[in-house]
Amino acid sequence: MYLERISSPEDVRALPARALPTLCEEIRRGIIESSSVVGGHMGSNLAVVELTVALHRVFETPRDKIVFDVSHQTYAHKMLTGRAPAFLDPARYEDVSGFSNPGESEHDLFAMGHTSTSVSLACGLATARDLAGEKYDVVAVIGDGSLSGGLAFEGLDNAAELGSGLIIVVNDNEWSIAPNHGGIYRNLAELRATRGASEHNVFRSLGLDYRYLENGHDVAALEEALRELAGTDRPVVLHVHTEKGHGYEPALADPEGWHHATPFDVATGSPAQDLGSDDYASITADHLVRRMERDRSLVAVSAATPYIMGFTPELRERAGAQFVDVGIAEEHAVTYVTGLARGGACPVLGIYATFLQRSYDELWHDLCLNAAPAVILVFGASAFGTTDATHLGFYDIAMLGDMPGLPYLAPTCREEYLDMLDWALDQTAGPVAIRVPVAGVESRPDFARPSDYACGYELVRRGSKVALLALGDLFPLGEKVADELAARGVSATLVNPRLATTVDEGLLADLAENHELVVTIEDGIVDGGFGERCARVLAERGRVRVRCYGLPRAFPDRYVPEELLASCGMTAEGITADVLETLGVTNVRTA
Amino acid sequence: MYLERISSPEDVRALPARALPTLCEEIRRGIIESSSVVGGHMGSNLAVVELTVALHRVFETPRDKIVFDVSHQTYAHKMLTGRAPAFLDPARYEDVSGFSNPGESEHDLFAMGHTSTSVSLACGLATARDLAGEKYDVVAVIGDGSLSGGLAFEGLDNAAELGSGLIIVVNDNEWSIAPNHGGIYRNLAELRATRGASEHNVFRSLGLDYRYLENGHDVAALEEALRELAGTDRPVVLHVHTEKGHGYEPALADPEGWHHATPFDVATGSPAQDLGSDDYASITADHLVRRMERDRSLVAVSAATPYIMGFTPELRERAGAQFVDVGIAEEHAVTYVTGLARGGACPVLGIYATFLQRSYDELWHDLCLNAAPAVILVFGASAFGTTDATHLGFYDIAMLGDMPGLPYLAPTCREEYLDMLDWALDQTAGPVAIRVPVAGVESRPDFARPSDYACGYELVRRGSKVALLALGDLFPLGEKVADELAARGVSATLVNPRLATTVDEGLLADLAENHELVVTIEDGIVDGGFGERCARVLAERGRVRVRCYGLPRAFPDRYVPEELLASCGMTAEGITADVLETLGVTNVRTA
Repeated sequence: MYLERISSPEDVRALPARALPTLCEEIRRGIIESSSVVGGHMGSNLAVVELTVALHRVFETPRDKIVFDVSHQTYAHKMLTGRAPAFLDPARYEDVSGFSNPGESEHDLFAMGHTSTSVSLACGLATARDLAGEKYDVVAVIGDGSLSGGLAFEGLDNAAELGSGLIIVVNDNEWSIAPNHGGIYRNLAELRATRGASEHNVFRSLGLDYRYLENGHDVAALEEALRELAGTDRPVVLHVHTEKGHGYEPALADPEGWHHATPFDVATGSPAQDLGSDDYASITADHLVRRMERDRSLVAVSAATPYIMGFTPELRERAGAQFVDVGIAEEHAVTYVTGLARGGACPVLGIYATFLQRSYDELWHDLCLNAAPAVILVFGASAFGTTDATHLGFYDIAMLGDMPGLPYLAPTCREEYLDMLDWALDQTAGPVAIRVPVAGVESRPDFARPSDYACGYELVRRGSKVALLALGDLFPLGEKVADELAARGVSATLVNPRLATTVDEGLLADLAENHELVVTIEDGIVDGGFGERCARVLAERGRVRVRCYGLPRAFPDRYVPEELLASCGMTAEGITADVLETLGVTNVRTA
Repeated sequence: MYLERISSPEDVRALPARALPTLCEEIRRGIIESSSVVGGHMGSNLAVVELTVALHRVFETPRDKIVFDVSHQTYAHKMLTGRAPAFLDPARYEDVSGFSNPGESEHDLFAMGHTSTSVSLACGLATARDLAGEKYDVVAVIGDGSLSGGLAFEGLDNAAELGSGLIIVVNDNEWSIAPNHGGIYRNLAELRATRGASEHNVFRSLGLDYRYLENGHDVAALEEALRELAGTDRPVVLHVHTEKGHGYEPALADPEGWHHATPFDVATGSPAQDLGSDDYASITADHLVRRMERDRSLVAVSAATPYIMGFTPELRERAGAQFVDVGIAEEHAVTYVTGLARGGACPVLGIYATFLQRSYDELWHDLCLNAAPAVILVFGASAFGTTDATHLGFYDIAMLGDMPGLPYLAPTCREEYLDMLDWALDQTAGPVAIRVPVAGVESRPDFARPSDYACGYELVRRGSKVALLALGDLFPLGEKVADELAARGVSATLVNPRLATTVDEGLLADLAENHELVVTIEDGIVDGGFGERCARVLAERGRVRVRCYGLPRAFPDRYVPEELLASCGMTAEGITADVLETLGVTNVRTA
C-alpha cells in the first residue's frame, strides 16, 4: 500500500507517476471506510482526490501555501501530510478533525469551516509574501458551491488587482450542498460545455487569467496543468471539472444526500442506524407546507441548506414558487426576505445559527431597521448542535441580542414551537426570530399560550427563595433542578423565559422581592447573553444574588455537549448543589 | 421655477420634454445650495439628477418600485416626490434626512444607508409581486462603487435566476467614496470604452441582459432607454455612464474630497470653517507612516474609506505597497488581514464601526478562530459618531464582545491611544481591536502604562462607597461625576476600564468588598455591553448594587449626541444625583 508509506508530501512527489492512480484508489477507499464509521463529507472529498495528489506533486507545502475553501474536503490532503493513519486505522479515526487544522499539521494554514474565504485569505498570504520579498506559490482551492458567497466575489475582485502571483483552482463538481443557485452556475455550465471557450466568462470579465481542464480525475493532466501555473506572476484561475462523489456509486446517485454522510454500510450505502423522522426539520416543513396551501404569500427561503428546515426535494417540488433556495448567500437571504416582506409576502428564512453570522449587518440594517415582518428560524443554535469549533451554534443569543426590535423566541417544546411559529407568521409588527430546539423533541401540552409572545416570560411554578430561569432547550434541566431542590425541601420558582434577548422587567422585579437567588440557565455564551441581561436589571435593584449559567466565549472543538455543559457547572446536580450552598441550606432532606 | 410646482412624480410626467433640462438645472442648484449650508453627499447626487428625472418620467411610484442603493443619492428623488421645499427653503433644509426614509414618503421603500443591498431588496419585491400575481416594474439603482460589495454580487447572481422582470440601473460615475478598487472596475472601464460592446461583460456572464448608455446626463436618452425596459419580463442591466459632481466645478476637480461635503462657500467651494487637523485620523496616519519606515511588514488596510484613518492621497502614495485599499468589501478586508497576519505581515485595518458589522462572521470565523495578530482600528464607534439611524456607531461593544480572544481596547486620550496601538502592533498573541476616540482629542500624559493591555483596568483614583467605571470617550464624564461627588463629600473610586468587553474580575471583586455601588458608563448599547458584563460578575457576589449607564437598543435618527446621552441619564448632574440618592446621601456639602 503506497499510502502507508507516505509520511509527508515529499513522499508523494517521490512516487513514480504510474503509482498515482493506485494511490488515489487507496485514498478514496480510506475516505469511504472511515466516513462509514464516523460520518463525513463524502461527496466533496471523493471529488478532489486526484486534484489533491496533483497539488502536492507540484507545490511544496508548507513553503508554498495551499488554502482549501471550507476545508471540509481536506481528507486526501490530510492523508498526504502525515495523517494517513487517521483514515486507515479504525482505532485512530477520531485523531483528526473534519477541517483543516493548524494544530494538526504545518501543512494546514487556517482553521476554517465556513465557505468562500479562501481567495481572500490567499490574497493576504500573497501580499505578505510580496512585502517580504519572498518567492513561493499561493494557491486557493475553491469549490463551485462557494462561489455564490459574496465574500468569494470580493476576494476574486481584489485578486484581479493584486499585481502578483496567485493560483485559484475552481473545483467545479456542479453542486453546492444542494443544487447550485445563481447566474454564475449557468456560466460555469457554459464554460464546461464549451471546454472553457465561451466568450461569457465571469473570471476573465474580472480581469483574471483563465484555464480549463475537463477531466478533474486525470491526475497526470492535473499535474501538468498545475505545473504550467507554478511560479505565475499574476492571478490565474484553473477551472477543473470534477464529479461529486466520484468513485462511490451511492454518493453519485444522490449528491445532496451524500454531501455529508452519517455512518453507513459501505456495500449498500444504507445508514447504519435509523435516524427517525420526528425532528424539528420535518415538523417545520410539514407545518409550513400546510400553511402555504391556504396562504399563497407564504415563502420559505433557504440559503443552500433546505434540509435543515425539512424541505426535501419532494416538498420543494410541492411548494413550487413558495420555496426559494438562494444558494450559499446568507447576506442576500436576509436582505431578500426584507424585500419580500416589504412587497407584501410572508417570508420565513430557515438558517443555521453559525451561518447566520454572515448576515449580521443585513439583520441590523435591512431587516430590523425596516421592521420587516419576516420570520427567521435559527437552526442548530445550541450546545447540542454542531460541535466543531468552526461551526459553533451557541453564539446566537449574544448576536441576535444586538438587534433592535427583534424578539428572539426560545421554545421549550414542540407545541410551543408551532404556536410561536404561527404567532410570528400572523403578526406584522416586525421581524421575529425563533431558536428552534436542538436537544430533542420535548412535549409540554400544558404550556401557557400568550396572546403576544413578545411580552414576557412564563411563570411555570411559583416557589420562594430561588427562582430558576431556564431557557429553551435547557428548560428540562431547569425542571430537573427544581425537582431536586424540592426533594431537599427548597421550593423553587421555575420560569420559561420564552424570550432569549429581552428582559421581562416586571417579572424580574417580582422575583427580586421574593427570592434570595435568581439563577439563569442557557446554552449560549454568558458574555452578552440572556443571563447577563437579567443580571443587570437585578443588580440595579441590588437585593437578590444572581447566578448565570452559560458557555464560555471560546472555541471548544469537537466537544461532547454534556461534558461542555458540565465543565460550566450545568448539570442538575451541580446547579442544585450551588443553589443549596448559596442559600446556606445545610439541613438537607433527601427524597 | 418648475421645481416649486412639483408636488408629486405625476407633475414630473406632465412636464413637456423641453422643460426637463431646466428642471435638472433647478434640482442641481437645490443640491448645491442646501448642501453648502447643511453638508451632504454632493458628488453622487449631482451625478444622478437626469437619471432620477428620467426614472420618475417612466415609472409610476409608488405602484412601480424604485430602490436606490445606499440612498445617499436620493436628493433629486426627494425633490420630485413632494419634498422640494426641504432643498429650496433654507428654513426647511433639516426637514428631510440624507437617506431614503419611508417615514417621509410613500415613494421611499426602505430606510437604508449601507451599500450593496438594492439588488437583493429588489429581488424580494419582485418575488412578492410575482407570488401575488401583480404587474409592476421593480428597479434597483446601484452605483458602481457598491458593486464591489459581496452582497451586490449575491443579489445579481440571484437576480439572474429570478425568471421574471427586474431592472438594474448601474449608475457608473467611475468612483466609489475614494477611487474604485477591484477587477470589476476594469470591466466597467472596458465596457465604457467600447460603449458596452466588449465581449468581457460581468453582467452578461451572470446571465443578465445588458444595455449601455454613454451619456447619463442626457435626460431624453435616459427616458428613452428606460421606457424600452419598462414592463420587461426578465432581469436586465442598464449601464449608465454618469459623472460624479456633474455641474459643479469644485466637485469635479476632487471627487474624493466632495463625496461628502461639510458646509462650504458655493462660489469657491472652500469649507465654511476650518476643520482643524488635530484629530484621530491624522494622529493615526502619522503614527503608522512613521512605523512603516522602520517596519516593512506593516500594512495599513482600508475598505474604501482611507480618510478615516488619515490616509490622504499623499500619504497613500508615500506608504506605497504598505497601504492597501480593498474597496467597498468589508468582509474581504477582515479575511484579507487574517491572511496577511498568517503570512507574516503586520496588518492594521481602519474601519467604521457601522461598516464593521458587515464583517461579523469574518471577525469570528477567520480572525479570531485563527488568533491572527491583526489590529482593527474601529472608527466612529461612539454616540458622537454619525447620528443617522442607518449609520449608528454605538453597537460595536456588544458586537465585538461576542468575539473569542479579541481584546477590545478603549483609550481615554491621545497618549493612551498611541501606546495601545504600539502595544497591539508589537504583540503577536492574536488580534486586537481599538475603539478610536470620537468625542475629541483628550490629553492625559499621566495615564498608567501597563505591560499588557489585555490584563486589566486602570484604577485612577481610589475612594469608597461608590466606584465609577467610565469607558473610553466617556472617561471625562466619569471624572466630572467624581469631582461633583467629591464636592458633596463623597469620595468616589474612578476606574478607566481600558477593556470594553472583558471583565477585570480581580478589580471588581475588590470594588465589591469596599463599595456600596458600582456605576458603569459607556456610550454603547446597554444590552450585551460593557456594563452588563460587570453587572453579572458583581451580581454573583451579591453585596453591591450596580447601575449601568448606556444607550438603548434602538434606532435613534439624526439625534443630538448630548441629548441622547441625557435621555439615558448620562450627564454629570444626572449621574451624580442618582449616586447620591442610591447612597442615601442627604447631608449635601456643596463646594
